[in-house]
Amino acid sequence: MDNGALLTDLYQLTMLQGYWRHGMRETAVFELFVRRLPERRAFLIAAGLEQALEFLAGLRITSDERDWLATTGLFGAEFIESLADFRFTGDVDAMPEGTIFYADEPILRVVAPLPQAQFVESRLINLLHFQTLIASKAARCTLAAPGKLLVDFGMRRAHGAEAALYAARASYLAGFAGTATVLAGRRFGLQVYGTMAHSYIQAHDDEAAAFESFAIAQPGNVTLLIDTYDTEAGAAKVVRLAPRLKRLGIPIRAVRLDSGDLGEHARKVRAILDEGGLTDVRIFTSGGLDEYVLRDLLARDAPIDGFGVGTSLDTSADAPYLDCAYKLEEYRGVARRKRSEGKATWPGRKQVYRRYDQAGRMRGDVLTIEGDPQDGEALLVPVMRNGERLHREALDVARDRALAQLERLPDELRDLDGAARYPVTVSARLRALAADVDRRVANA
Amino acid sequence: MDNGALLTDLYQLTMLQGYWRHGMRETAVFELFVRRLPERRAFLIAAGLEQALEFLAGLRITSDERDWLATTGLFGAEFIESLADFRFTGDVDAMPEGTIFYADEPILRVVAPLPQAQFVESRLINLLHFQTLIASKAARCTLAAPGKLLVDFGMRRAHGAEAALYAARASYLAGFAGTATVLAGRRFGLQVYGTMAHSYIQAHDDEAAAFESFAIAQPGNVTLLIDTYDTEAGAAKVVRLAPRLKRLGIPIRAVRLDSGDLGEHARKVRAILDEGGLTDVRIFTSGGLDEYVLRDLLARDAPIDGFGVGTSLDTSADAPYLDCAYKLEEYRGVARRKRSEGKATWPGRKQVYRRYDQAGRMRGDVLTIEGDPQDGEALLVPVMRNGERLHREALDVARDRALAQLERLPDELRDLDGAARYPVTVSARLRALAADVDRRVANA
Repeated sequence: MDNGALLTDLYQLTMLQGYWRHGMRETAVFELFVRRLPERRAFLIAAGLEQALEFLAGLRITSDERDWLATTGLFGAEFIESLADFRFTGDVDAMPEGTIFYADEPILRVVAPLPQAQFVESRLINLLHFQTLIASKAARCTLAAPGKLLVDFGMRRAHGAEAALYAARASYLAGFAGTATVLAGRRFGLQVYGTMAHSYIQAHDDEAAAFESFAIAQPGNVTLLIDTYDTEAGAAKVVRLAPRLKRLGIPIRAVRLDSGDLGEHARKVRAILDEGGLTDVRIFTSGGLDEYVLRDLLARDAPIDGFGVGTSLDTSADAPYLDCAYKLEEYRGVARRKRSEGKATWPGRKQVYRRYDQAGRMRGDVLTIEGDPQDGEALLVPVMRNGERLHREALDVARDRALAQLERLPDELRDLDGAARYPVTVSARLRALAADVDRRVANA
Repeated sequence: MDNGALLTDLYQLTMLQGYWRHGMRETAVFELFVRRLPERRAFLIAAGLEQALEFLAGLRITSDERDWLATTGLFGAEFIESLADFRFTGDVDAMPEGTIFYADEPILRVVAPLPQAQFVESRLINLLHFQTLIASKAARCTLAAPGKLLVDFGMRRAHGAEAALYAARASYLAGFAGTATVLAGRRFGLQVYGTMAHSYIQAHDDEAAAFESFAIAQPGNVTLLIDTYDTEAGAAKVVRLAPRLKRLGIPIRAVRLDSGDLGEHARKVRAILDEGGLTDVRIFTSGGLDEYVLRDLLARDAPIDGFGVGTSLDTSADAPYLDCAYKLEEYRGVARRKRSEGKATWPGRKQVYRRYDQAGRMRGDVLTIEGDPQDGEALLVPVMRNGERLHREALDVARDRALAQLERLPDELRDLDGAARYPVTVSARLRALAADVDRRVANA
């Protein structure tokens, strides 16, 4: 997963050369935020901070990388030599992973010498954007199917290796039980799920023989995939097989359905299993699932115990990116803002305060500048000082935070269509600062 | 990029344990194909074969990985020990990268002992799916903006590191000139593009001073971003700065616009530059671009020379995944097919033949079984035998193939709305084989 310092946009390096040439290394403040939420997203969940801090703490430009940069012809030898000592020595404040947030609220602030704060932009966005995207998508499944077993099945169509691994992590953070991706289980300590594919059935001349062969080989982990040819006929074969397996001491834990009208099939299969005395055998489903399908299946009272959610989760298919940005908000002690059309930002070092009602539900945030305390909880906390990490937490701590925050979400924001908007107020002092910055730029 | 053998779905390993337990290691045939094209895609471009073959040739399950598998409690010790010798020793036939293909046409066939052919499924799909997705998206930009400079700008919102790198590769393959992602440039030998961000401008108290400082630091690579405050005012500053830079021997190559109505701004900026004698300065644009925006801008004759296409490209935003599958088509010499509702497959080892009209345009494909030669060009070629690679080609060879094939696309398939459907005929012999398989399963 460590691809090194060159996993960046070229302009970070050309700008660095400019800053170096002109000795611009005073303190800069950048903040990362989402400009506006995608359609059908009423909230987002911050994720990826662990990897972001790891990236910052380990940032080096190796001699091998510097040698390659020299071959491009774009950089002077003295500038390249200066990169040998390049480290991240700045401060970072951030919302801990699992924090719910809204448009325009910074989830991470970097305060560092300008070249450092600039250079880290591309990979910081790359890391925080993706996990935030997936955690936010996964949370919608958690809301749609409370109490159900949710498993990430998305590796094959995730966008590459790192996406598969971080999607597993981010979906666990937002309430999933685990993942099918073995390496994600190993790397992040997640529960790994999985049993058989259709090819296992097809490789046998007879479906019932395939069930039996599989069960004998994995006596502790028997979930049988029953839709390869005919779902209900498959369920009937499971019923006929169960007594023989029982005599061998092998329990059938579940059947999996992967095609057709899952609600309809689940109902029929449940009846067949129950009638055959297999009331303990769970029904697990997969195949084209997303939060909307989960909601609809459960609204129809489909007797489904668990869901493998794949492609739609790992690609966040209905909203495959967030409109996020990492922007310079202050340099040399002077607040700055970008004013490009449709992309203006709030200047200065900001903080977000969140208030709750008496039942503990979120009732509104205030976006203001640092040093302007408001009622409520301050969401950005110190996570790095002088390049040293202050903050490390177990993934389960972040997961508990996410689940607790989902509980505190106002009811209207739990709706999957995301029509409601949460109130985020911009403070008078922040508005005044923005007006100051504009006046200064106009007079420049 | 090498994440090892455990970057897979758990069920591959549980199935392997089943095959091992029952001695099922006869020859299996799997094929990878796309079931149906996304809306607004009239064709796809095969990509990712280089990485797929590299994965197969290097596949090992290390002792460290086996030790970890033992800790899961899911696998027997003897089975885990057997994985020490696990290698891919099979045959692969595939469409070379850059080949245009359609629904149901296999782009890759694996013929290998069942456990091997099974195990490689998850990562093979993961590798081929993503690059094919992005090459197919990028080709639409190539069609929409013929002769324009196209650059991949998508790293920050690509889904992780590997997605960023492979998106750069796949978009180059489909006609892009290069990428902003430095590491992709290094790894794949691509031209790297990039100059400055808004933060560079903002870090200076004055926009004109920022332009000058940048130009002096990168005299050979001067593209100035002019939309931070007011695009046309930025263009006027470029005109005022140009004579001074000229005296220093520094040419301004281009300006970049990143916000607002790009067509309108480009027209005004072009006029300002031309009036100021800067007729050689190119206009490069970025910000929310995709093939539809490119088409519209060029339909309006916007005087734009190049485009940085980012998020929509690297996430294939309007179609973030393909409905692809890797299915068992034959085992122990007997053709197989999955019959799950809506997911039935064509059985057996297949080949695709493509015919062209007299002008060299594609006029129809035939999908048939191996050993049933048809008129036209056979698209699947041998790329691996007994685990040894037969096929290696430079990325530029694949790119030339893709560009040549785009030239041969029927006119109606070049339309970005993708309404037209290319004729793919299923041969009589393949239909007969499918009917045979169904009869056999029904009688089983």
